[in-house]
Amino acid sequence: MNESYVIHQGGSFTEDRLALPKLKNIKIDDFFWNKYIQLVTDVIIPYQWDILNDRLEGVETSHCIENFHIAAGLSDGEFYGAVFQDTDLAKWLEAVAYSLAYEANDALEADFDRMVDLIEKAQWEDGYINTYYTLKAPELRFTNLQEGHELYTAGHLIEAAVAYYLVSGKDKFLRIMMKFADLIYEVFVVKGQEGYPGHQEIELALVKLYEVTGQKKYLELAYTFIDRRGQGDNYFLEEEKGSNFFRIFPEFKDYDPAYSQSHLPVKNQLTVEGHAVRATYMYSAMADLAYYTEDDDLLKACEILWDNMTNKRMYITGGIGSSGLLERFTTDYDLPNDDNYSETCASIGLALFGRRLASIKKDASYYDAVEKALYNVVLAGLAMDGKSFFYVNPLEVWPPNCLNRTSKEHVKAERQEWFGVACCPPNINRTLASLGEYIYFNDKDTVYINLFISNESQFSLEEETVEVNMETNFPYDNKVKIRAKTSKSGNRLAIRVPGYVEKYDILVNGQDLKDLECMNHYVYIDLSEGLSEIDFVMDVEAHFVYANSRVRDDQGKVALVKGPLVYCLEEVDNGDNLTGIYVDTDVELEESFEDELLGGIGTITFKAKKIMKRDEESLYHRCKPEMETLECKAVPYSHWGNRAKGEMLVWIKYLNV
Amino acid sequence: MNESYVIHQGGSFTEDRLALPKLKNIKIDDFFWNKYIQLVTDVIIPYQWDILNDRLEGVETSHCIENFHIAAGLSDGEFYGAVFQDTDLAKWLEAVAYSLAYEANDALEADFDRMVDLIEKAQWEDGYINTYYTLKAPELRFTNLQEGHELYTAGHLIEAAVAYYLVSGKDKFLRIMMKFADLIYEVFVVKGQEGYPGHQEIELALVKLYEVTGQKKYLELAYTFIDRRGQGDNYFLEEEKGSNFFRIFPEFKDYDPAYSQSHLPVKNQLTVEGHAVRATYMYSAMADLAYYTEDDDLLKACEILWDNMTNKRMYITGGIGSSGLLERFTTDYDLPNDDNYSETCASIGLALFGRRLASIKKDASYYDAVEKALYNVVLAGLAMDGKSFFYVNPLEVWPPNCLNRTSKEHVKAERQEWFGVACCPPNINRTLASLGEYIYFNDKDTVYINLFISNESQFSLEEETVEVNMETNFPYDNKVKIRAKTSKSGNRLAIRVPGYVEKYDILVNGQDLKDLECMNHYVYIDLSEGLSEIDFVMDVEAHFVYANSRVRDDQGKVALVKGPLVYCLEEVDNGDNLTGIYVDTDVELEESFEDELLGGIGTITFKAKKIMKRDEESLYHRCKPEMETLECKAVPYSHWGNRAKGEMLVWIKYLNV
Repeated sequence: MNESYVIHQGGSFTEDRLALPKLKNIKIDDFFWNKYIQLVTDVIIPYQWDILNDRLEGVETSHCIENFHIAAGLSDGEFYGAVFQDTDLAKWLEAVAYSLAYEANDALEADFDRMVDLIEKAQWEDGYINTYYTLKAPELRFTNLQEGHELYTAGHLIEAAVAYYLVSGKDKFLRIMMKFADLIYEVFVVKGQEGYPGHQEIELALVKLYEVTGQKKYLELAYTFIDRRGQGDNYFLEEEKGSNFFRIFPEFKDYDPAYSQSHLPVKNQLTVEGHAVRATYMYSAMADLAYYTEDDDLLKACEILWDNMTNKRMYITGGIGSSGLLERFTTDYDLPNDDNYSETCASIGLALFGRRLASIKKDASYYDAVEKALYNVVLAGLAMDGKSFFYVNPLEVWPPNCLNRTSKEHVKAERQEWFGVACCPPNINRTLASLGEYIYFNDKDTVYINLFISNESQFSLEEETVEVNMETNFPYDNKVKIRAKTSKSGNRLAIRVPGYVEKYDILVNGQDLKDLECMNHYVYIDLSEGLSEIDFVMDVEAHFVYANSRVRDDQGKVALVKGPLVYCLEEVDNGDNLTGIYVDTDVELEESFEDELLGGIGTITFKAKKIMKRDEESLYHRCKPEMETLECKAVPYSHWGNRAKGEMLVWIKYLNV
Repeated sequence: MNESYVIHQGGSFTEDRLALPKLKNIKIDDFFWNKYIQLVTDVIIPYQWDILNDRLEGVETSHCIENFHIAAGLSDGEFYGAVFQDTDLAKWLEAVAYSLAYEANDALEADFDRMVDLIEKAQWEDGYINTYYTLKAPELRFTNLQEGHELYTAGHLIEAAVAYYLVSGKDKFLRIMMKFADLIYEVFVVKGQEGYPGHQEIELALVKLYEVTGQKKYLELAYTFIDRRGQGDNYFLEEEKGSNFFRIFPEFKDYDPAYSQSHLPVKNQLTVEGHAVRATYMYSAMADLAYYTEDDDLLKACEILWDNMTNKRMYITGGIGSSGLLERFTTDYDLPNDDNYSETCASIGLALFGRRLASIKKDASYYDAVEKALYNVVLAGLAMDGKSFFYVNPLEVWPPNCLNRTSKEHVKAERQEWFGVACCPPNINRTLASLGEYIYFNDKDTVYINLFISNESQFSLEEETVEVNMETNFPYDNKVKIRAKTSKSGNRLAIRVPGYVEKYDILVNGQDLKDLECMNHYVYIDLSEGLSEIDFVMDVEAHFVYANSRVRDDQGKVALVKGPLVYCLEEVDNGDNLTGIYVDTDVELEESFEDELLGGIGTITFKAKKIMKRDEESLYHRCKPEMETLECKAVPYSHWGNRAKGEMLVWIKYLNV
C-alpha cells in the first residue's frame, strides 16, 4: 500500500495539488479552539459512545451497535433505526481515529478495535456490510439506490477505515472495507449494474481509499458513479418503477432528480441544486476526480458550482441549503433568515469542497467561505457543553413561532440532544477532530497557512523537515506570530490573506516587508536557514456588512462581522423584539473581551433604536410606532443559544437608508 | 316544514338575532361586484360543470359526477379522486341554487334536478351517501372520522339541499339529505357511537337543516358533535389505534389534536388553533348553537376566539392560517408575508363566523374583518376571467423562489386552473352567489346595511314591506345613496359605520343629521312613511396603515389601504425588486380611476425610493447600497396577478422610521 496521502499524476494538471498535513504532526493549542477540541475528546466522543451503546436515558434510542451485534449473529433481535443507522458508528469511528492522532488513548483504541472486529463479523462472505439490509431485506441489496443509503453508509465506513489506518498504521479495518469496495466494483463496474448512489458520499471515500492503497479500481469506481449521474433516463425514476421497489421515505414520492443532483450530467450542472449535503459531498468528489483523472471540464464544473454556491446561495454564516423542506438549495439570492434549513452537515460539506479546490488551484480565496462555515455554522452546531446540537442554523429566531406541525417546525430555538437522524453531531465531531487538516497545506518546498490557529507542527518537505509554531489570539486579536525553523534555505511559507482583510503588514525577523509576492491570496515568504520569526498583522476590526442588493431578505439590514466571525444579537442581552432594532451604520462599535462570558468571548456594543411596544388592541392602525434608544450587545453567532432560550438575530435593520 | 329562516327561541338571549335576507329579494347591480357575479353565472358555474363532468382537457381530472354514476350502479369503473371528492359537486350545487335566486335558468335547474336524481340513486337504503366509501370501503363507514370526511361531505350536501329548497321550493333533495341526517343521528346519538367530524362543516349545515325543517334532532346532533369535541381522551388518537383503521393521508401521522380543534373542549379554547378552515366552520356552528341553545358560555367562547383571530392572527387582507404546512394558525402576531398559506376558504369561513356574531350581537364591528376578507382574499382568489384560482394568498411574492419541492412550494405566483383538492373555486363561487346575504340583515322593524353595494331589495318586516335601493361607487367613491320606501312610519334603517371611517355625514332627505343614535357601530335612522332619501358620506381616502408593533414581519413597513381595499405593488407597474422600495409615509397619495385597467379599477400613485441593483459579484461587502427614485403605482390586492406573472408586495418599507 501507498503511504503517501497525495499521489502525483502530472499531465495537464501541471503541478501536484497541495497536500494535507498528517494530523499527528499538528498539535493545536489555541485559546479559541481548545475548548471545542477538548469537548471532542472529553465529552462528545464518550457521550456519543454511550448513545451508540444505548446507555443514556432520555435520549432517542440509537440501537446502532446493537444492530451490528444482531447482524453478526451475536444477539437476537430486530433492526431498529433509520436505513443509514450504521453511519452513526462510522462517523464516531472516524472522529476517534482523528482524535487518536492528537492524543493517544489506549482504552479508546481498544474500543475501536472491538468495533472493527464486530464489523468484520457483520460482513457477508462476499464483502457486503449494512445492518439494515442484512437484517430487514437481504434479498433487496442494491435495488433501492434512491433511498437505500447502502453506498452512502459504505462511504462513511471507508472514510473511518482510511483515517484509522493513517493514524494507527493498523490495516484490518481498511482491508475489511477494501473487500466491500471490491464487491461494489464487481457489481457496478465488472457486472455492469446500472445506477449510482442516492446520497453521494462513497465517491469521495473511494478517492481516499485509492490514495492510501494506490489501487486505481477505486478511482475508476468513483469516477463511474460521478460520470453516470444524470445521463439518459433518470436512474432513480426508472428504478422506482421496478416490481422489487419498496418506498422507504414517503416524502420521496414525486421524486425530483435535482434533489440528488441527478437532473443533468454533472459537467452540465451550472447551479447548485437539491439536497445541500448530497451536493457538497458530490462536488468534493468531483474536485478530487478532476485532479486525479486530469479532467479539465470536471474541474471547470466544480469552479462554476463553487461560484454559484458561494456568491449566490450562501448565508453570511457559511450556511447553505435555504429550503426548510428537503434541506435543499432554492434559487439565486433566496436567503430567508428565519425559516431556512442550512444544515450543519451541509456547511461541513462546503468546507470539504472548498479545501479541495484550494489545494488543487493553490488559491486561498476558497478559504474565505471555508473559514466562515467553520467559525460560524459548524461551531454554532455544538453547545458549549458538547451535549446538544443544532442541525438547522437560522439567522433569526423568534422562539414562540418555532412550532411543531407548522412551516417553522424544523427551526429550533434550542439545541437538541440527539436526533433520530443523527448525522450532524458526529459530523461536527469528526470535523473538529480533523481541524489540523484545515489549517495547513504543503507542497515540496512550501508550507501554506490557511487558518490562524495557535499550534506547533512539523512538515516533511521534499528535502527536509520544517517546524512551524503559530501563536495568535485570532479572531479577537489581529496579530499572528509564526516561528518557522528549517535546516536549510529554499523553503517558503505562504500565508493566506483573507478576503475580509483590506490591509495587512508582515514583519520577518522584525523587518517590515512590503514587496512580498502575493499570488492567489497567498503571500509567499522565503525562509532562511534556522529560525524565522514572522509577524502577520491584519486589519480585522468589527464592521457592518451589507448583502448584495438582490438578497431580498437582507435589504435595509446590516450584519456585524469581525474577521470570519459573524455576530448576532440575543434576547438575553438586548430584550425581546430584536427585529424592531434599528442601527445607524455610522455608529461607534466598541469591542470588548469578556473573560467570564461563555469561556471567554469577544463582544461588540453599540447604540441603537428599537420600536416601542405599545398597548395596542388592534392589529392595524394609522399611528406610526415610536422608537426608544438602547445599548446593544452582540456576541459571536457560534456561541448563540448557550445561555437562555430566546430570540436571536443576525441581520439588523439600519436607519440611514 | 318551517319556511322561516330564523327561528325565535327567546330565553336568556332576550332578542332574536338579526335575520338574513332572502336572496331572491336582492337584485345586485354594482359596478364593483357585477363583474364577479357575472363571472359566477356566465363563466364559473358552466366551467366547473364541465370540470365535474370531465369535459375539459388540460385540467386535472375530477371524476366527481362519474363517481356518483358508479355508486348509483349506472356506470362501471372505480372511484377516483380525494376522499372528499363528492363535495365538489355539493359546492357547485349550492352555488347554482344561490345563482337561481338571482336569475332563473331552466336548463341549469334541470341539470340540478338530474344531479338530485343521481344522488338519490347513489344513496344507500339506510340513507348513507358517500361515493368514496360506497365504492372503496363500504364496510369501513364511520370508522375513520379523523380523515374520512364523510360527515364533512354530508354537511356540504345538506347546505346545497337547504339552499335549493329555499330558492326553488322543491324538497326532494332536502328529503334525501334529511334521510342521511337521520341516519347520522341514529348512529351517533341514538346508538351512541363515539366521535365527531375530523373536518367540521356538518355542524353548521345541521343548524341550517333545523332552521328549514324545525326538527330539533338536527340541532341536537350538531350540539352533540360540538360538545363532545376535545372531551376526555382524544377521540382521533383513540380511533387510529383501532385494528380497522387505515391511514388515508400520510401527513396525518403524528396527528396533533389541535389541528382539528379537538385539543380542548370548545368552551375552553381561548386561542384559534389548527387548520383554519376547520376552525372557522366550527366557530360558525358554535355561534349558531350558542344562539339556539341559549348557551352564554358558548357565545363567550366565540367572542374570545373571534378576538384572538382578528386582533392577533389575521392579515390585513383578512387572510388567516399563516403556516404553509398544514394550512393552520400558528401563534399571536406571527404573520409572515411571503410564505403564508391564508387559504381562500379560511377567509370565507371567517366571513361566515363574523356574519353570525354580527347577527347575534347586533354589532356591525364584526363586519370590519368580514368585509376585509371579502374585498381582498376572497376576490383575489378568482382570476378576472373566472377560470383560475388562488388557494394560497401571500402578501409578498417573488416568483423565482416559489419552487416545487421547497418550503415555498405552496406559494404560487400565478392562479391555478383546478386542483386535485378543489375546495376553493366552488367555495368562492357559492360565496359570490350568496353575496346578498352579506349585505343586509333585518329584524322586525329595521333593515341593517352591512356592505355598500348597489342593489334593489325588498324586506318583509313584521308589519309591512320595506323597499331599499342602494346606489354607490364604493369603495372608490365615498358616497352611498339609499332610497327606502315604506308604507307607514315606525321602521328604521341601520347603517354600518366601518372601523376605518373616522368621519361621516348623514343627510336624510337633504337634511344633515348629527344626533342619530349609533349603537354597536350601526347608526339608526327612523324612516318616515313614503320615500326616504339618505346620503351616507364616509371619509375613505387612501392612507398608510402600520401593523401592531409586535408583528415582526411588518416592522418598518406600511400597507396602503382605502376603505376595505388593501393595495399592492406589482412588478408590471413598478419593475422588479419591490422589497427594495422605501416610501416616506408623509408622501402625497394620488388616487385615480382607470377605466381601461382590469375592467375599471382605482389606482394610487406616489413617489418612492428603491435600492439600486449594482453589478455585484459577491454576496456580502462593506459598501452601502445606493437608492434611486421612482413613481410607484398601487392596485387593489383583489386584482393582482391578472396581467403578467411577476412580483407582488403589500407591506412597503418606510424611510421616516
